[in-house]
This record gives sequence, C-alpha cells and structure tokens, in this order.
Amino acid sequence: MTLGSDIGGTNTCIGSVNVDGKVIARTRFSTSDYTDGAAYANRLAEAVRKVMAETESLSSDSIEWLGFGIGAPNGNHRSGCIEDPPNLNFKGNTPLVALLHERLQLPRIELTNDANAAALGEKIYGAAKDISDFIMITLGTGLGSGVFVNNQLVYGHDGFAGEIGHISVIPDGRYCGFGRRGSLENYCSATGIRRTFFEMIAQQGSKTILDSKRISEVTAKDVADAAYAGDEIAQAAMDFTGRLLGEALASTALVTSPAAFFLFGGPVNAGEVLLDPLRRAFEQHLIPTYKNKIQIIVSSLPMGDAAILGASALVAEHSL
Amino acid sequence: MTLGSDIGGTNTCIGSVNVDGKVIARTRFSTSDYTDGAAYANRLAEAVRKVMAETESLSSDSIEWLGFGIGAPNGNHRSGCIEDPPNLNFKGNTPLVALLHERLQLPRIELTNDANAAALGEKIYGAAKDISDFIMITLGTGLGSGVFVNNQLVYGHDGFAGEIGHISVIPDGRYCGFGRRGSLENYCSATGIRRTFFEMIAQQGSKTILDSKRISEVTAKDVADAAYAGDEIAQAAMDFTGRLLGEALASTALVTSPAAFFLFGGPVNAGEVLLDPLRRAFEQHLIPTYKNKIQIIVSSLPMGDAAILGASALVAEHSL
Repeated sequence: MTLGSDIGGTNTCIGSVNVDGKVIARTRFSTSDYTDGAAYANRLAEAVRKVMAETESLSSDSIEWLGFGIGAPNGNHRSGCIEDPPNLNFKGNTPLVALLHERLQLPRIELTNDANAAALGEKIYGAAKDISDFIMITLGTGLGSGVFVNNQLVYGHDGFAGEIGHISVIPDGRYCGFGRRGSLENYCSATGIRRTFFEMIAQQGSKTILDSKRISEVTAKDVADAAYAGDEIAQAAMDFTGRLLGEALASTALVTSPAAFFLFGGPVNAGEVLLDPLRRAFEQHLIPTYKNKIQIIVSSLPMGDAAILGASALVAEHSL
Repeated sequence: MTLGSDIGGTNTCIGSVNVDGKVIARTRFSTSDYTDGAAYANRLAEAVRKVMAETESLSSDSIEWLGFGIGAPNGNHRSGCIEDPPNLNFKGNTPLVALLHERLQLPRIELTNDANAAALGEKIYGAAKDISDFIMITLGTGLGSGVFVNNQLVYGHDGFAGEIGHISVIPDGRYCGFGRRGSLENYCSATGIRRTFFEMIAQQGSKTILDSKRISEVTAKDVADAAYAGDEIAQAAMDFTGRLLGEALASTALVTSPAAFFLFGGPVNAGEVLLDPLRRAFEQHLIPTYKNKIQIIVSSLPMGDAAILGASALVAEHSL
C-alpha cells in the first residue's frame, strides 16, 4: 500500500492507494491556512497518520506501507523542497521531505511537481503503461507537463524539467508574470480559456448565452459547457484554444518525439469542440516524418482521485 | 579503434578514430554522384576498407575494430535506414546499415542523424563528458539538434527526436517547405542568417561592406565576417539571429531542463556579435527557476573532424 498527497493552493488531499490503483481512504485540509512550512508539515503528518489508521481499520491483514508520494507546485524531486511556489502561502524554500521524515516512520517519502505526478499516475495506473515515450499535459489554473523518455520521468539537471506551459507561443502576447509575455499557459489553461472567451467577445461583438453572468463568475467550465451547447463565442474560444495547443504540441514533439500526448483536466471535458481543432492543428504543423504517428489521448485517470494516484505512483514506481 | 562517416549532401567523409578521439586516417568521395542506395553502399564500403588498410599500415600493433558509426541526414537509429532524406539524391528508404553489413566484416554498424552524432561526439570526446542533460545545436544548411537526458541520447518513440530546427518561432513567418512557416531553422541556420541579411538591407536601406558582392555569392560566413568587421547591416542580422535563437532555446529548455546548450557550426565562429545577444535573450526569456543555471557553450569539437568523431562515437559509446 502507498500514500499519495496532492498539495494545491486551496486544499491538500491525502489518500491511501492499493496495488490496483484504487484509493482506499482519504482526507483533506486547507492549504491556505498555513504560512509556515514546519506548521504545515505537522498538519500534513497528522493527516497522513489519520489515513493510515483508517486504512488499517478497514483491512483484516497487516499492511506494508511502501511510502508517501507528494505532488506540489514547484516540488523539486532532487532537493525534496518546494521552491518559491507561486500559489502557496509558505514562501521561499520548504524542505518538505526532510520535515516529514522527522515526523513520519515511512521507508520512502518523495516529492515532485503536480504535473510530473500526473504523468507517473498515467504510467503506473493509466493508459501509458506500455508507452516508453510520452508527455502528460495538465490543464488547470496553469498548464503543467510531465515528460517520459525511455520509460523514465525526465527531471533534467536541476529537477524542474517539463515546464511546457511557459513556452512562448505568441511573441509580445498576453502578460504572464515574471516579465514574460505570450506563453502557452496564458492561452490554453483553464485561466487562459476564460481570457480567450473575453477576447472573442471583443473580436466578434455578438451575444453569448453567458451574457447574464457576472464577469467574475465566468469559469472555463462555463465556456466549455456553452461551447458544447452551441454558443458561437464560446465555440470560437475553444477552437482558438485547440488550434494553439495543437500547434504548440507539434513543436514540443520535436524535442523528444513522444508516441503520445495525454491530456488531463477540466477543459478536456469539453470534448470534440476542443479536441477536434487541437488534433487537426497538431497534424497540420507536424513535419512529414512525424505525421500520423503521434496520438492525442484524453487521460484515463479518474478526475477526483487522479492527483492522489499520481503522487502515490512516485513511490509505487520504485517497487515495480 | 572505431570508424566514423559523415554523409553530407555534397561529400561523404570517412575516418578512423583512436580511443583518444584523434582521427588517424581519412578519405572522402562525392555523395551527389549516387542516385541508388546499393551503388552508394558499394562505394562507401570501398572507402571504409581503404581507411582501414591505411590505418593498419600506420600501426605496428594489430588493430581491433569496434565498429562503424554513420551520421546522415534523416538517419534513423532504430531502423538503420536513411528515410526520405531532403538533401540526398537517393530517395525513399535506404536500409544503409543492412547494406553495409553485407559488404563489411565489422561487429557493429550504427546510423543516426548528423546532429545526434555531433551530440554523441561532444559527450564522448568533447566538453559534455560530465554533463548528463544537455542539448547540442548544429548550425549549418539547416539547424539540427541532439538531446541528452540522463546520460542517454534521446531517440524518441520512432528514432527521430531532436528536430528543434522545425519548432515554430514566428507565426506565419518565412516559408519553410512542407507547407509550414516560421520555423527556427529558416532564421537561425547559416541559410537563415543569409536570408536575414537581405531582410536587414530591406529594413534599414543603408549601405553594407558586402555591396559589391553578387547576391548569389553572399554566404552566412560573409555576413558573420562583415559583422565582426563592424558592418551595421551584418551586425543587425547577427543580433536578430542571436536574439531569436536565445528565445527559442529558452523555450526548448523547458522540456528537458538541460544543464547546457552546446553550439556547433560555422555561424558560431562569428563570436560575441552572435553569442552576446543570444545569451542575453536566453536569460531574459527563462522562467525564474531556470535563470543563471544553464550554460551556452561553444562546442570544443574540432570543426574539420567533428562529424567523423561524432559518428564514430556512435560505436565508441557502446564500448565505454
């Protein structure tokens, strides 16, 4: 049995996972209440002990705990630290793995970023089991990615590989923070889709079925749902998103030549209104030697438990 | 002792390489004379036997031949075939490794593309010996690349990874063939630099020290030399090239997080007039977690013998 935790800006989720990739017990608490790494580690260790106790109470056999895997924004696998996370309230470097080893008796505690955890989840429990070279794309507040080469997750020289969301796609485009402009995640994440929706209102000037919503209430899910329902402005936004992501993935494929891209996250639920323009733009922008060889696949990980599964795969990986 | 061959559109060079990475004997013949793969393989096998005989005549000891490594445009390591090479006269698929095994008694014959061979050369004989994650960029007629991750050359699912030259950098930019537009190698290869020089004449409308040259005679080397000599148009061309390449490498770094980029090829000899804007644009476009961590290094491989060394490294790699 393994343990997995997904540290998000709002909530931290913890769960126990059996060898078949099923979440057995789970709990959650608010991440944003904590501004101090050590206090947060205390709370996380307490939650882990609760999940372990609950799991053990459900089982008649004694349980061997292989370890605890954690996915977190800016989680560095090499250093075991969360480094300058943009969306968390504890700033600077937090040596989370070391803090947890002091608090928990577990043989293995591993940290990586959330998108790498999702890629591992797809590899260990999902549809990437038999694929040695693939790239996982997670669409949420940001756009994350995890890169597999030769059956290994790529960490790069400093532990931070797979930051495809920051690739520049529109020179002098939207402002991204960091003083950079026009990067992929400002267009193709959930946040980016919402911005594109307003751009399409500006460009087309016509009515939308979301007109009665307050601006602050409009989410990427609303845009996806409206597109699915036939709204032209929303469809234009999803079409633009699909085409831009397809073109960016065609460029990304040139680096590691993956057999597949897996897509994960809320916006993917929009279905063909996003996927059709995405696949068409992808094939169109591939060089001839790459055409008709690379699949675009919607992740098979269960949306609710995917982050816990992915994080737990970080320790399951070593026991295969 | 190993053998290496660089198959270029114009010439094929063959050489023998000792364990210290020194070319001992070499020969060359015209590639463009051959339109048939089997006839070409006959000529290449003959050249290899000549180099082996000459090497053996220079040595008092008996020589153990480890194998023959070949770098060629569109050389596929997995299949051993040259597949639809854009610059060679033998079209379609040429199963070069199989053809050579029929003609040569060597334990190992390996094929890859020219930029992958250069990356291997840098890893085995050059300055990348102790670097596990790096990317080699070769600037010539095209822009090639070879990607190392975890001390392994990345081939990807079909043997064609590392085609960074085809990354889209300017939406709707210069025509590239394949119906694609705005890809990196149309700006930052030797051919691209020549095109940029004419763009700068168009934009700035002023005189250049190359004014007395026929258009057809102007080469990237002329532009680099003119820039080095202080010509403003040529400097603007090299500055544009450096900035665009720097920005593209900053995006590329996001996929595999390399510790270094190595640059190889004629245009790199322009020195700081290219490298200074390149390094500044690179750092400027990196995300904060990547800044001041990734080196831009001019390849230390000897220009004349680099391709033979790189190709021979393909078989030397297995004997380490």
